[in-house]
Amino acid sequence: MFIKSLTTAAFLLSSGVVLADPLPSWNAGQSKSAVIDFVNAVTDPASDSYVTPADRIAVFDNDGTLWAEQPVYFQIAFAVDQVAKRAEADPAILTSDALKAAAEGDVEGILASGKEGLLEVLATAHAGMSVSEFKQNVADWLDEARHPTTGRRYDEMIYQPMLELLSYLRDEGFATYIVSGGGIDFIRVFSEDAYGIDVNQVVGSSLVSEYVVGDAGPALMKMPDLFFNDDKAGKPVAINHHIGKRPILAGGNSDGDFEMLEWTTSGEGPGLALYVHHTDAEREWAYDREGHIGVLNRGLDEGPDRGWVFADMATDWSTIFPATVE
Amino acid sequence: MFIKSLTTAAFLLSSGVVLADPLPSWNAGQSKSAVIDFVNAVTDPASDSYVTPADRIAVFDNDGTLWAEQPVYFQIAFAVDQVAKRAEADPAILTSDALKAAAEGDVEGILASGKEGLLEVLATAHAGMSVSEFKQNVADWLDEARHPTTGRRYDEMIYQPMLELLSYLRDEGFATYIVSGGGIDFIRVFSEDAYGIDVNQVVGSSLVSEYVVGDAGPALMKMPDLFFNDDKAGKPVAINHHIGKRPILAGGNSDGDFEMLEWTTSGEGPGLALYVHHTDAEREWAYDREGHIGVLNRGLDEGPDRGWVFADMATDWSTIFPATVE
Repeated sequence: MFIKSLTTAAFLLSSGVVLADPLPSWNAGQSKSAVIDFVNAVTDPASDSYVTPADRIAVFDNDGTLWAEQPVYFQIAFAVDQVAKRAEADPAILTSDALKAAAEGDVEGILASGKEGLLEVLATAHAGMSVSEFKQNVADWLDEARHPTTGRRYDEMIYQPMLELLSYLRDEGFATYIVSGGGIDFIRVFSEDAYGIDVNQVVGSSLVSEYVVGDAGPALMKMPDLFFNDDKAGKPVAINHHIGKRPILAGGNSDGDFEMLEWTTSGEGPGLALYVHHTDAEREWAYDREGHIGVLNRGLDEGPDRGWVFADMATDWSTIFPATVE
Repeated sequence: MFIKSLTTAAFLLSSGVVLADPLPSWNAGQSKSAVIDFVNAVTDPASDSYVTPADRIAVFDNDGTLWAEQPVYFQIAFAVDQVAKRAEADPAILTSDALKAAAEGDVEGILASGKEGLLEVLATAHAGMSVSEFKQNVADWLDEARHPTTGRRYDEMIYQPMLELLSYLRDEGFATYIVSGGGIDFIRVFSEDAYGIDVNQVVGSSLVSEYVVGDAGPALMKMPDLFFNDDKAGKPVAINHHIGKRPILAGGNSDGDFEMLEWTTSGEGPGLALYVHHTDAEREWAYDREGHIGVLNRGLDEGPDRGWVFADMATDWSTIFPATVE
């Protein structure tokens, strides 16, 4: 323990200068040390693990990794609210059990109608409008909606320790990307303000979109069909499409991120995989192997043997959410 | 004419300081003035057309805009060479007229077999291998192959005036993207060295790729099916996916770029559309309305009325290709 504490403290004493802790909301311990040791190794020109800045690519899942995802993915909460709002104006749109459940805010009812029902609800909330109209809807919703248990804005349900990690990585020359199963146009509405991540560094799932020239000029219209599902094996594929390089650091929290972490750590050079483990029922939620949201089985089974780092939220994080600024 | 010359020269005299010409290979004239006036307007904080650096997005087609495309798209030349090389080792792969034509270097024969034949040749040259194997093949080919009429390396068939424009824009805070009908994995092999464009700023067409974990670890395998055709109305769609913002400057040379230029110039703020017009049969090639490569009809018909700028290669460009460095 004494030796480990010394290692952890080493970054404070570089060149005799006391540097500020780059991750103040991370408690001292194996996870914090592993992250800092990795960053030091890939940024030190004298290290065998040195990586040029152009190749310092870090990718992060969003739901459950950068912001919370309970009791249901926030994008589903958005879709439910949108369907309810439209049904008020025109109840005739509720043509299925899934849509009726959505209009009543009954998420269990939507999930009971299966993947098809969920896609129908998402399509109703996301399609049939231009990308810019959709983004305005998301922005309006973020301003109005509040999380059911914390009463916070959804875009304030972000993890303070991960915000610090993103800043730290950028300070050390990394490019930080979101690679999410959530919708690319949805996340881009808040990625800059919430995470300091430019919209061109957001990768996500998407519906088909079409370029249509109407009376008001050209628009990109969102269609009800899925174009790309950025989950599981789709994540490395999307990383190649959008980024064109293999990342050297990846963060996730569920089995949907497994292939992204595997891809990141199977390159010839150094690679770090970080799993955020939801262990804090008091300050956040505790869940992993069971349920419908953020299921983590293979990651828990194989991650430790692969040398992947687990951030245990209860013990590794001194703070969960940032102080609310209102 | 006298007034126009004064306008053109104005950038030389800003604040009484004589600045270097940012586009030395562009002859003085309307096209050069239009480009420089636009850049000055969007970068001058006192201008009504000022655009913050984060929104200074410039997009460029590749074939015929940044590099040459005659007598046939260079990626087809690559595919033909690849098929011929593989047929030497295993003639049994030549299962169709299109593939036989390819093995004989008979581009006309491939084109005669229609779009299906062309896709078959491209699939044979591009699929059935990992992305990294493919990129190595492209790099090897670029080192060996020479253009049939100029004897240059293909990646030296790039336009010196466009290289200057890319540098000028980046110096003025623009992000410069390639948005090409050509293959994204193909272009990324040379985009950094040829154009100074990072691989994450390349957008292109692509085949389906799959994440496969084999004995040698995970790989992204290229499949023979088309995933996305980044041409015509596909270009604005791809720009939204990859960049997430509407560009303010777009350069192209054919009707395949029309929608990209239209999208760029139909935003609320300023927008510049630039067509490279192939008018120089002596130093390059002269073509537009007819043929199979780089056809430009709608652009010529509608572009002038839309205020789009035409770079006439014969009169506007003092140099076509950079001096060859061997």
